[in-house]
Amino acid sequence: MVQRIAVIPGDGIGIEVTAAARTVLDAVTAGHGIELAYDEFDWSCRRYARDGAMMPADGIEQLRAYDAILLGAVGWPGVPDHVSLWGLLIPIRRAFRQYVNLRPARVFAGVPGPLRAEPGSVDLVVIRENVEGEYSEIGGRLNRGFPDEVAVQESIFTRAGVSRIADYAFELARGRRAYLTSATKSNGIVHTLPFWDEVVASRAERFPDVRWDSEHIDALAAKLVLEPGRFDVIVASNLFGDILSDLAAAVAGSIGIAPSANLDPTRTYPSMFEPVHGSAPDIAGRGVANPVGAVWSAALLLEHLGHPAAAARIVTAIEATLANPASRTRDLHGTADTATVVDALVAAL
Amino acid sequence: MVQRIAVIPGDGIGIEVTAAARTVLDAVTAGHGIELAYDEFDWSCRRYARDGAMMPADGIEQLRAYDAILLGAVGWPGVPDHVSLWGLLIPIRRAFRQYVNLRPARVFAGVPGPLRAEPGSVDLVVIRENVEGEYSEIGGRLNRGFPDEVAVQESIFTRAGVSRIADYAFELARGRRAYLTSATKSNGIVHTLPFWDEVVASRAERFPDVRWDSEHIDALAAKLVLEPGRFDVIVASNLFGDILSDLAAAVAGSIGIAPSANLDPTRTYPSMFEPVHGSAPDIAGRGVANPVGAVWSAALLLEHLGHPAAAARIVTAIEATLANPASRTRDLHGTADTATVVDALVAAL
Ligand SMILES: CC(C)[C@H](C(=O)O)[C@@H](O)C(=O)O
Ligand SMILES: CC(C)[C@H](C(=O)O)[C@@H](O)C(=O)O
Repeated sequence: MVQRIAVIPGDGIGIEVTAAARTVLDAVTAGHGIELAYDEFDWSCRRYARDGAMMPADGIEQLRAYDAILLGAVGWPGVPDHVSLWGLLIPIRRAFRQYVNLRPARVFAGVPGPLRAEPGSVDLVVIRENVEGEYSEIGGRLNRGFPDEVAVQESIFTRAGVSRIADYAFELARGRRAYLTSATKSNGIVHTLPFWDEVVASRAERFPDVRWDSEHIDALAAKLVLEPGRFDVIVASNLFGDILSDLAAAVAGSIGIAPSANLDPTRTYPSMFEPVHGSAPDIAGRGVANPVGAVWSAALLLEHLGHPAAAARIVTAIEATLANPASRTRDLHGTADTATVVDALVAAL
Repeated sequence: MVQRIAVIPGDGIGIEVTAAARTVLDAVTAGHGIELAYDEFDWSCRRYARDGAMMPADGIEQLRAYDAILLGAVGWPGVPDHVSLWGLLIPIRRAFRQYVNLRPARVFAGVPGPLRAEPGSVDLVVIRENVEGEYSEIGGRLNRGFPDEVAVQESIFTRAGVSRIADYAFELARGRRAYLTSATKSNGIVHTLPFWDEVVASRAERFPDVRWDSEHIDALAAKLVLEPGRFDVIVASNLFGDILSDLAAAVAGSIGIAPSANLDPTRTYPSMFEPVHGSAPDIAGRGVANPVGAVWSAALLLEHLGHPAAAARIVTAIEATLANPASRTRDLHGTADTATVVDALVAAL
């Protein structure tokens, strides 16, 4: 059965790392009898400059028929975020009910991280709520431009939304170290986060085999630095998950290796896979970007499409590649360019 | 001139570290001709258990006449946050318009931090907006207890509020390395944070001698771990400042040494000084708490009351004390108890 992948390289290094991910996918799928068919979409800030929109008006409709979406990165200097992000990335997450943003972070053996902690001591997954919460379009401004101007923004949490993300996180924890941490700030944010806490506690009853606790986001951020090895699965709201997943990636050594999966666990709509890093205009087009975040995201795509063995092979290849200083990019204090890392990955497969 | 200090030791280790701070204050003020008069208030979760409220109904009125407030920590298991925090800490911040929460973080020479970074490479101040923003009491719930329940919370930012915190941060940066970082998330939080960015940019025009930039909170959290030495002054909203200051304290080695000043820069109302750490029920009453956060907060109090030389002496004593492994508490991988640290501080003065 051919599985169809929509590829959106996007902007900057998104183009380079997506090409790298496709090379690695080609190298692994052959041997596993997996057939993927790709269609590439030039939706990006370049397209916006040309046509006045990041994607066509029926962009979401065009994507609907695919089995999965592979995204590079979007954003470019001069293009406002409400265009580049709210005109592509965020509508896809929302239209396809990708309510889970899954973001693993691991310290790979041999990779020099910022912490004194031992390699291998960090292996966690942030499960970020991805369609509601603090990222709401609801709000506005009063007295614009005047001294008494006020800006208001609503955070909106629903019982359905918190329940399903909690369930996903508890399920995942069950298959790992059976330990879940829920990020909160119910001591300061007194309406939505006490509600989050209540709903997580009520879902926890269905998972008596999973140990769980709740940590305020400020203390949790500190603990991720001081004792990252403690954590297994962390469930967090849209904003807190955004912060914690970048932080966890940094603790693990580099944002350049961090992958993410925007999942619709009901499989009604296509899920989307993208590295956590952005388009990195400062190094774009120079062939030096770290492709590991995109390649690892491609592994998550394979897993989602029902090919866990092929996915695991990619992760093993990443381990072997990162263990060798000669195949690490500059963000990992190496000197390798993108092509060198891709060659090493393919050789390791 | 006698300056009057309201002391609220609060709960748990708050009591121990406040006593330590008073001992150090006594040791330093004598030699500088500073006269402080203290009144102690037992406002705490113990008081709540006894009288049904953290502080008396006229608590704010009682504090109004003081020159400053020294707080230990509030909170105790079993007492809900809306009682312990919203019944004491947060009303004081708000009633006295303490709109600046100033939180320095430094890596002290010799102190083993979590990062491989060199000691002395981190020396920054987080300036946190302290009375508006994400910590708003406005919001509520619909369909309570039903499957379609929704919780809503408003974030409210005012031009006046953002302007004054930006001005404070730019002024402070001017007296330091003239470099300011503004924390934002205007790419995801599309009403309040673009407004924050605009107001900060407009205030920046008054400080052409200060270099500044804006970083999204996710990337900023990562950079605080990967290159903390880059930062000098960071200005942030109430929630982001809360997260970043705990994170910066962790990067500097321990929450136990982090101080904070809740300031009304107009000096209309008393300002409040408190360590960043909480009441730590797990180690309370055992005499092992790190008193440095409270002692450093007392130094900030002296500075605010017009005694910079005495304040600087305390900071020098902290440096000397932390440089000696024998006078470090457990959170800093030492074995000293609170009394040993206090003795070392007093000896160093
Ligand atoms: C206890 C809590 C409400 C408080 C805050 O978030 O303001 C604390 O974390 C702090 O940083 O002072
Ligand atoms: C670009 C931005 C809107 C986005 C987010 O915050 O969701 C990004 O930081 C991410 O984590 O995918």
